[in-house]
Amino acid sequence: MTEVKRKAVVLLSGGLDSTTCLAICQAEGFETYAISFRYGQRHAVELERATEIAQSANVARHTIISLDLGGMGGSALTDRKLAVPKHDTVEELGQEIPLTYVPARNTVFLSHALAWAEVLGANDIYVGVNALDYSGYPDCRPEYIRAFEVMANLATKSAVGGNRLVVHTPLILWSKAEIIRKGLELGVDYSRTVSCYDPDEQGRPCLHCDSCLLRQRGFQQNGLADPAASVSL
Amino acid sequence: MTEVKRKAVVLLSGGLDSTTCLAICQAEGFETYAISFRYGQRHAVELERATEIAQSANVARHTIISLDLGGMGGSALTDRKLAVPKHDTVEELGQEIPLTYVPARNTVFLSHALAWAEVLGANDIYVGVNALDYSGYPDCRPEYIRAFEVMANLATKSAVGGNRLVVHTPLILWSKAEIIRKGLELGVDYSRTVSCYDPDEQGRPCLHCDSCLLRQRGFQQNGLADPAASVSL
Repeated sequence: MTEVKRKAVVLLSGGLDSTTCLAICQAEGFETYAISFRYGQRHAVELERATEIAQSANVARHTIISLDLGGMGGSALTDRKLAVPKHDTVEELGQEIPLTYVPARNTVFLSHALAWAEVLGANDIYVGVNALDYSGYPDCRPEYIRAFEVMANLATKSAVGGNRLVVHTPLILWSKAEIIRKGLELGVDYSRTVSCYDPDEQGRPCLHCDSCLLRQRGFQQNGLADPAASVSL
Repeated sequence: MTEVKRKAVVLLSGGLDSTTCLAICQAEGFETYAISFRYGQRHAVELERATEIAQSANVARHTIISLDLGGMGGSALTDRKLAVPKHDTVEELGQEIPLTYVPARNTVFLSHALAWAEVLGANDIYVGVNALDYSGYPDCRPEYIRAFEVMANLATKSAVGGNRLVVHTPLILWSKAEIIRKGLELGVDYSRTVSCYDPDEQGRPCLHCDSCLLRQRGFQQNGLADPAASVSL
């Protein structure tokens, strides 16, 4: 008798965290459905990389959803008039929620993932949010994820029918170094992941935005150079 | 000194409930920002009507967000291969969640409303959900709305900064007859609202879907004919 794999929806941005999260979801035995979003982000190269990564990982299906968030403004990630903050070292990162915050982004993304999960008959969503080496976004915290899960379990016909939806956040309390270590164990190829908030057209990282600095430190703490960075550290 | 009105985002479908909800929001003194969604619904005429209604109501801004929900399938409202269920009388409506249910629709819509509210600096969202004379959708129940509100207050930079977001659902426990009575008190013109799940191209209602039957009963209970119905009741 062939075992039927349970399905899971995985949010995939093409970055280091979500690519690791996808590998974990697959290692946990799920048939994976990857979902990405075109939301007016300036680093649209991440969608090409997400597509590449989904294909390499042999997911059951990869869907890219186009949203209008860009028109709403309010973030350096979607508004070309705002500059992405740059620093020389990771110690310079501020304590405040930065300009790269996109209003309610994870709520919008998780809501679409929830809709797709219900259509697919999946009870599991994986999202690579991280509350430790992160940029201070409120929608990456454990208390936010738990509240989303409670809401989701009241929102759908599937949940009312007794199927409990679980939002998995395997990376949420790990350091960037730990995430990288886990990914390498699972055979993740980080050379094609793009984490930078402001890459050039070829997807080369700026090496000075919050996301680049956190990523570089993660590789350094593993005694490695970032395979996606064009300069050695 | 001129009083600055507080802003509110109102979900506006162009139907009877959301149009009444918009009127209530304005009567409560808010500067209103209306948001509608193009999500592959077969009754796309409702977007034309929503635009008309938003203009008549003189809202501060009306935005229509295009989403990919249609491609996901799973509902008679977005999938042309599934027929909208029809009945002769309101007593025939089933107890089960019907085929017109769209997976996680209100969660997706409210999430986009939350994002826009944050960009606008609005702490109030109005949505015309109704848990009484409704089609049995899980995401119209008070417990769902409260859970969304809890989640939303953990999700955003605005909430973390101390601004409490409130999701207003003034219609949630009213009968359709009560909603109509309130709307008429506030001067709502129901002749241009479209509630039907399966209208013709001119927006004329089928008069036999769940939504038509509930609406007709609401007008009847007020001793009125539905001004939008092409046949008298």
